[in-house]
Amino acid sequence: MRGKIINDPVYGFIRFPEQEMMQVIEHKWFQRLRRIKQMGMAHLVYPGAVHTRLHHSLGAAHLMNIALSELRSKGIDISRDECIAARLAILMHDIGHGPFSHGLEHTIVHDISHETISRLIMQRLNEEMDGMLTYAIAIFDNTHPKTFLHQLVSSQLDMDRMDYLNRDSFYTGVSEGVIGYDRILQMLTVKDGGLVVEEKGIHSVEKFIVARRLMYWQVYLHKTVLGAEHLIINVLKRARDLAQKGVDLFATPSFRFFLYEKINGHDFLSEPAILEKFCLLDDADIAASIKVWTSHPDKILSQLCSMLENRRLYKVRLSTQPLEHEFEKMKQVVLNAGQINEEDLEYFLFKGTTSNNTYNQYDEKINILMKNGDILNISDVDNALISSDLTVPVEKFYICRMP
Amino acid sequence: MRGKIINDPVYGFIRFPEQEMMQVIEHKWFQRLRRIKQMGMAHLVYPGAVHTRLHHSLGAAHLMNIALSELRSKGIDISRDECIAARLAILMHDIGHGPFSHGLEHTIVHDISHETISRLIMQRLNEEMDGMLTYAIAIFDNTHPKTFLHQLVSSQLDMDRMDYLNRDSFYTGVSEGVIGYDRILQMLTVKDGGLVVEEKGIHSVEKFIVARRLMYWQVYLHKTVLGAEHLIINVLKRARDLAQKGVDLFATPSFRFFLYEKINGHDFLSEPAILEKFCLLDDADIAASIKVWTSHPDKILSQLCSMLENRRLYKVRLSTQPLEHEFEKMKQVVLNAGQINEEDLEYFLFKGTTSNNTYNQYDEKINILMKNGDILNISDVDNALISSDLTVPVEKFYICRMP
Amino acid sequence: MRGKIINDPVYGFIRFPEQEMMQVIEHKWFQRLRRIKQMGMAHLVYPGAVHTRLHHSLGAAHLMNIALSELRSKGIDISRDECIAARLAILMHDIGHGPFSHGLEHTIVHDISHETISRLIMQRLNEEMDGMLTYAIAIFDNTHPKTFLHQLVSSQLDMDRMDYLNRDSFYTGVSEGVIGYDRILQMLTVKDGGLVVEEKGIHSVEKFIVARRLMYWQVYLHKTVLGAEHLIINVLKRARDLAQKGVDLFATPSFRFFLYEKINGHDFLSEPAILEKFCLLDDADIAASIKVWTSHPDKILSQLCSMLENRRLYKVRLSTQPLEHEFEKMKQVVLNAGQINEEDLEYFLFKGTTSNNTYNQYDEKINILMKNGDILNISDVDNALISSDLTVPVEKFYICRMP
Amino acid sequence: MRGKIINDPVYGFIRFPEQEMMQVIEHKWFQRLRRIKQMGMAHLVYPGAVHTRLHHSLGAAHLMNIALSELRSKGIDISRDECIAARLAILMHDIGHGPFSHGLEHTIVHDISHETISRLIMQRLNEEMDGMLTYAIAIFDNTHPKTFLHQLVSSQLDMDRMDYLNRDSFYTGVSEGVIGYDRILQMLTVKDGGLVVEEKGIHSVEKFIVARRLMYWQVYLHKTVLGAEHLIINVLKRARDLAQKGVDLFATPSFRFFLYEKINGHDFLSEPAILEKFCLLDDADIAASIKVWTSHPDKILSQLCSMLENRRLYKVRLSTQPLEHEFEKMKQVVLNAGQINEEDLEYFLFKGTTSNNTYNQYDEKINILMKNGDILNISDVDNALISSDLTVPVEKFYICRMP
Repeated sequence: MRGKIINDPVYGFIRFPEQEMMQVIEHKWFQRLRRIKQMGMAHLVYPGAVHTRLHHSLGAAHLMNIALSELRSKGIDISRDECIAARLAILMHDIGHGPFSHGLEHTIVHDISHETISRLIMQRLNEEMDGMLTYAIAIFDNTHPKTFLHQLVSSQLDMDRMDYLNRDSFYTGVSEGVIGYDRILQMLTVKDGGLVVEEKGIHSVEKFIVARRLMYWQVYLHKTVLGAEHLIINVLKRARDLAQKGVDLFATPSFRFFLYEKINGHDFLSEPAILEKFCLLDDADIAASIKVWTSHPDKILSQLCSMLENRRLYKVRLSTQPLEHEFEKMKQVVLNAGQINEEDLEYFLFKGTTSNNTYNQYDEKINILMKNGDILNISDVDNALISSDLTVPVEKFYICRMP
Repeated sequence: MRGKIINDPVYGFIRFPEQEMMQVIEHKWFQRLRRIKQMGMAHLVYPGAVHTRLHHSLGAAHLMNIALSELRSKGIDISRDECIAARLAILMHDIGHGPFSHGLEHTIVHDISHETISRLIMQRLNEEMDGMLTYAIAIFDNTHPKTFLHQLVSSQLDMDRMDYLNRDSFYTGVSEGVIGYDRILQMLTVKDGGLVVEEKGIHSVEKFIVARRLMYWQVYLHKTVLGAEHLIINVLKRARDLAQKGVDLFATPSFRFFLYEKINGHDFLSEPAILEKFCLLDDADIAASIKVWTSHPDKILSQLCSMLENRRLYKVRLSTQPLEHEFEKMKQVVLNAGQINEEDLEYFLFKGTTSNNTYNQYDEKINILMKNGDILNISDVDNALISSDLTVPVEKFYICRMP
Repeated sequence: MRGKIINDPVYGFIRFPEQEMMQVIEHKWFQRLRRIKQMGMAHLVYPGAVHTRLHHSLGAAHLMNIALSELRSKGIDISRDECIAARLAILMHDIGHGPFSHGLEHTIVHDISHETISRLIMQRLNEEMDGMLTYAIAIFDNTHPKTFLHQLVSSQLDMDRMDYLNRDSFYTGVSEGVIGYDRILQMLTVKDGGLVVEEKGIHSVEKFIVARRLMYWQVYLHKTVLGAEHLIINVLKRARDLAQKGVDLFATPSFRFFLYEKINGHDFLSEPAILEKFCLLDDADIAASIKVWTSHPDKILSQLCSMLENRRLYKVRLSTQPLEHEFEKMKQVVLNAGQINEEDLEYFLFKGTTSNNTYNQYDEKINILMKNGDILNISDVDNALISSDLTVPVEKFYICRMP
Repeated sequence: MRGKIINDPVYGFIRFPEQEMMQVIEHKWFQRLRRIKQMGMAHLVYPGAVHTRLHHSLGAAHLMNIALSELRSKGIDISRDECIAARLAILMHDIGHGPFSHGLEHTIVHDISHETISRLIMQRLNEEMDGMLTYAIAIFDNTHPKTFLHQLVSSQLDMDRMDYLNRDSFYTGVSEGVIGYDRILQMLTVKDGGLVVEEKGIHSVEKFIVARRLMYWQVYLHKTVLGAEHLIINVLKRARDLAQKGVDLFATPSFRFFLYEKINGHDFLSEPAILEKFCLLDDADIAASIKVWTSHPDKILSQLCSMLENRRLYKVRLSTQPLEHEFEKMKQVVLNAGQINEEDLEYFLFKGTTSNNTYNQYDEKINILMKNGDILNISDVDNALISSDLTVPVEKFYICRMP
């Protein structure tokens, strides 16, 4: 079995001694993650941020290893099979991501989330691998009785976000996102079946939450990144509209299928071949097609694609206050100029809201195990930095317009 | 002129091209800071934390250089002389520190703070150097008209704390204290004569405040460090008491002077030779004397010194709740055991409160320059992490007892 | 003008205040480098190594900035225009790279090196930009009288390799490749018009050479990377052969052009449109096409493409000794198995030699300025680590075979 | 049991779960290493280099842990007791160091090396600890049958130098000394009872040797460091001479003993109390005494001490060529000036040779395990960087003179 030790700039050497892990890692559907960037369009602002979902998945599995060792050293009962299953679950947690997921999910692949696709892929792999993944799927689905294993895969303090904060900080160069992951992992324990952090780790958790908050506003929701993501959404929306009207568009075969067919979530379940087609998609399909579209006869499509290709992104205004009034004024200016039809306006000028909640899809709280044995939510701990206010998602308002 | 480029593990190469800087750096009273540890007893918990006040002072002067360049590049008017003066002011800001300052100030050198001594030393150096430091002293004293220069030396966002957070994190290995100092420096500007941070730097400032908070609780007020600092205070207090009673104690000559004479703040002003004697003190005097005292006939002194020398520190209990009741119980147990007189109890069992305010001696707020031109205190910015609550100092209660 | 400060995980903030630099950076032909990985297939072994040629070019331009400041601070006469020209020259030094250059140059785009294409692109940009790049081109071509400026762009110690060693080490996680670039830059000076290193920098230069040597064998010529690069070469060769025979192959339009037409170096000069077509190529064209070919009817093409896609790479044996005998034995085994025709053998089993010279295309020596004013080649300095032996390229022998 | 996890800025968290390790760490003779700087006077050039021998010893024991785990994972038979013994041996390898060892050993404590004192201390501790250290001593003395365990403690690739290179690089900020220790440790294995490095680790070993070489010349034998070390030797020599003539000198009691008595190596063996006195010495004794001597009536002593205290170090000329002629000229100038007697000249102007061999006290070679099973010395491997020339110590010539 090869490739057991991998050089990771973030953590140093990471090890995959288990044959089960290697079997998944070497599967073509996992290797496919090598061709999907973790941070989508963020590299247009942070040029170093071109790391892949494969790399993130390997890193998260490494952190899981450390977390499990720590818990076992504290006497928490976790069998070897459970360790492998938890490692497999986190390894595959993102396996259903498509290229530029946020863009794709709103335009081309409807009514099905990447989590659902991950689950479908895991089931298919489980069949191929004769049930080897059954426990891993149970942990992913939180049907395994040891809830804390699921929480390591998916909760406010899971290995997913611990890795992506580390890795995204590292590759963007935004050092403020760096978290003391080793200290947090060392403070994890289990109480009443749930994952908790020992009281003395409270400041590290505070730092983690602040680092995450900082990464949202400085990176994930950076206004230029926001504009770039809306640009690719608009490109895909326009292409989809043209395709549905029967206009001819260059596309790689697998991309063509999703562009011209009307596939929804239900079809993934009823027709197994669709999942296989989905698993052929990666960043190159989208990128290669968009480049060709820069010279498409549809003026809107070609203009949007040129903008993306040559990094002439939307101008974005981001505010904590609603921007209705400003938007209306801009709109009149654009329409009065007379070069854009009102029906096409959405490609040239649009508004919306964004929230750090976008990334906050899980509701669980971070529980702190106090020295006296009580479990408190971090926002209820005396003198804690994290007030309950902070857990309310912050909404911001934006306007994007053509440069 | 030699030594212009210094290798600093924290920042890489740091440069001192100005002849004025070198003149101060090479002075024996600055070189003396080489023999005083920046973090006092913290190395008993964090063995790497043995860096010196000299190193910190050089680092802070380096950050000042970056800050001034940044401000000048934004068109803020700062003359070359002001640049040098501000660099000199921060270089000398800690020059009045004695060995184990917190311990010494409460026991041996009374009624005079290290800031005051710094000022006295600066004046003396200024005489020696024919007025070369006049502007630097004005900036230190905030009598120079450009307030922002003083704020770079001493305020919530000064180069002093920016360096000590960086450096103390680095040398303790507590990576959570790492701050994005380069980003903060880049966001500094001046408005209405005062130092402000541009709105887009707000998250970096939040991170800075959180890192500082974390360093307080995890490092500066770590319960074992707290215990070690009280141990050296008690050693010095006992030695002082014995000396004042005429008991013979080994001491290096300069330490002997302060141990046996009754020097107070007023004497520093009236008798210039005292300052010179003070400037002969460093960590080695205290350490060498304490080692000899481990075999002193006074049982209490020798026991306390052995504890310090062999790292058998006080056991410390730290709580957010008052510990009166617990303390009373412990006290009865100790006294009932019959081996300790009530008058000596303070060396064996004592209580107190500690606060992150200890380090928060300046009142200025961190001002944010909003995009619309307003200046807001960071706790008044919408959705800011830093609520006004957070700026209230947190008090904790402790009990120290003999191991 | 936007985007002046860029966050680089390798160096921190890097600055591009000059309008001329931004004009080139924002050009679509420079932006295209964003879509070409610096290290080709190396990410199949080092998953972090997905950084781009754009990022490398920005980094090299940053190092140039430091080097020029250092030289000016030593009194070397360099005008502002020359500084900008040198910065532009290094910024564009790789602008002619195609996707997977090493593979492409041997199979699809014949008889023209990426350096030549870089030069063609620079000339075209210079026309567009009304002669703004004239000096930069002169420096690149070494026709500018100040030779040392050319040497900063292209020599044994140029900013190109200084950046790629730093960056490739960083992104692969192979920390042994890390070089003390700041110290080397600080030791640079100019003597008799040529770039030299001060004697006291000799150990840093030794370390640089050793780090480079280590990166060759551990990364660039890693046997699995070698196998992966030969795999993509074979894929492209097979595809090219099929195309030339008229077999139908999916390809993105720009890739199709080079696949089906017979373009050679001369055509680039005679027909300007070819350069434009070339500048449409990037990694996505190759990757998207190869993925489609995994189901091509030609068995050899589809097998090779599946290998690449699913990371089932050639098995490679690397030796300092010739492997003739071993190769012959393997060959007989393969042919006797009867499933492969002798004419197709080259796709399944082949041998060759590799050399660290591959990357050593420049002949200049590293000159050391001794304290007595002499200039010596580093291999002639007494007690230097770098003997003349070491400068002879080392050849290794390899066999690749189907897994 | 306390202090099990220690924060090390170099390696992160390092763990000491074994009760045996903690028993030694908490012993006062080990804690004493906390008061002895690892790099002596080097902090006068590299202000960050104030780390202690205690910290180095803990770090080396951490690396031993990694090395032993790696070897065990490769099937090398090492019992739990042997693991602890090897950890103890490296933990104590420097326990016999006195303050400023190189200075002290040539002047005050004669005819006994720090290795011998380490051995005496280990024996004494072993008695105190009822034989717990017997195996550790056998490994240290190479009388334990598994030679490779001794080699991990003391050989060309031992954990001692692996840690000191890492740690000294880190604290000086000389990044060129950084070694890929994790990769080297991973390549260690045992063949025919001896420690060897797998062939694929050869480049990392080359890098290690080069880093070491660089650290010698750039740090350990830096000319200013060399001058500072000779200065303290001269201070101690002068003080010793005065003491032996009966002149009164201030000294801390333990230092006074060695200054005024004539202790040689034999006395350590015949009189156990001498070892105890030796173990009371640390940096503070020397520093506190030297400071007092700055005002001693002996002009030579006071001048030398002032130089040290105020960092006015010898001017040093370092050359690969003998400096006889130059020295003679300087000597005549100094003597002709008439202020210095010929008998005192050795304090004002002297010459000598230095060699990177100083630190190369072990003769073992680094053995490489080739893929074919052969063991070759690294200088015999084809194309290796390390020629046999390189293993010959390089001698340099120096002159030190009063500033």
